[in-house]
Amino acid sequence: MLSTTARTTLNRGKERARTDRTDLYAVLDAGLICHLGVIVDGAPMVIPTGYGRIGDTLYLHGSTGASSLRAGTTEPVCVTVTHLDGIVLARSAFHHSVNYRSAMIYGRARRVDDPDEHLDGLRAVTEQLAPGQWDVVRLPTRKELAATAVLALSLKEASVKVRQGPPKDDEEDYDLPVWAGVLPLNVSWGEPLPDPRLTPGVTVPRHIRKRG
Amino acid sequence: MLSTTARTTLNRGKERARTDRTDLYAVLDAGLICHLGVIVDGAPMVIPTGYGRIGDTLYLHGSTGASSLRAGTTEPVCVTVTHLDGIVLARSAFHHSVNYRSAMIYGRARRVDDPDEHLDGLRAVTEQLAPGQWDVVRLPTRKELAATAVLALSLKEASVKVRQGPPKDDEEDYDLPVWAGVLPLNVSWGEPLPDPRLTPGVTVPRHIRKRG
Repeated sequence: MLSTTARTTLNRGKERARTDRTDLYAVLDAGLICHLGVIVDGAPMVIPTGYGRIGDTLYLHGSTGASSLRAGTTEPVCVTVTHLDGIVLARSAFHHSVNYRSAMIYGRARRVDDPDEHLDGLRAVTEQLAPGQWDVVRLPTRKELAATAVLALSLKEASVKVRQGPPKDDEEDYDLPVWAGVLPLNVSWGEPLPDPRLTPGVTVPRHIRKRG
Repeated sequence: MLSTTARTTLNRGKERARTDRTDLYAVLDAGLICHLGVIVDGAPMVIPTGYGRIGDTLYLHGSTGASSLRAGTTEPVCVTVTHLDGIVLARSAFHHSVNYRSAMIYGRARRVDDPDEHLDGLRAVTEQLAPGQWDVVRLPTRKELAATAVLALSLKEASVKVRQGPPKDDEEDYDLPVWAGVLPLNVSWGEPLPDPRLTPGVTVPRHIRKRG
């Protein structure tokens, strides 16, 4: 079960709430980037960034010089992952909506100091974007590791919202001669584009070619 | 030109900054949802939501009962729109990246009270998600308008970041026998799915069928 704190309990749109921890994992594991919210000088800052999950911990990374990453360890943060699945076209403007799956995680992030966890966190972030790559690429040098901060955020306080399905119009509007339904949004991988400086003879590996 | 405040001036990754206002419009106009960052009880909250642009004003909407919308008019906000265009696969873990276009807008949002601007804002939000719909659907009733808050945010303070193109590896890594390049991410519209309760004989209008 997910947490039941005030801010993770939906007041409106209750029917969209999912309360099982596996729903949270599903939204996170299917994502590529998150939006990290931090407070910098009293104002919110929302940064698109990579992430990875290991069990009930979310890992984020960034330059050790980034003010947003520094703020993330001293102030509370919010991480949101959103999948937009389609546009819901209703008979009335008011009932237009979107189909989506989203997760919001609240808490205080911890700067990872332990060298093993630091590397595990970076691996999780890399593998979330590019599964299979960690085992074939040059791994980080000591200098690169020192330049990369890793934040850990517990998944303890989280909420999941999902909307799927057709529009919900007012009963008296169903007879209007207006087309209604869902326009699905599809996300797919394109053909891999080789680096112009690729060493001749190096072919696209199976874990990239077969993705999706 | 875009603003040059401290938080909109990039310290790292300067080559990714775009400073022309048309770049901001391009990122916003191509988007479907934004991530709105607000401060609620001293903590950030990052909410995926719809938006629309009219000139140099961004409009957001939400239930008048939503604490996030209320917070958006009393505390500073940040709105981020992100397009993820591909995964950048480098020869080293460190240089893995993503191709993207993103815009961040900072400021204080204003609750729209003027009835004409309120309706214009709602129209902009609806048309951003579903262009052409406003002219064919049932428009909001007085009661629906009263239930929907519209926030206006000036585009005065904004930054745009864009990364495109192949990986940038360390010079000594280019000879590694590792495939490198970009795996593009494509977003496309699927076939419109009619509402099961659609009035027989109502066909998909051109503005929906021809989208994309």
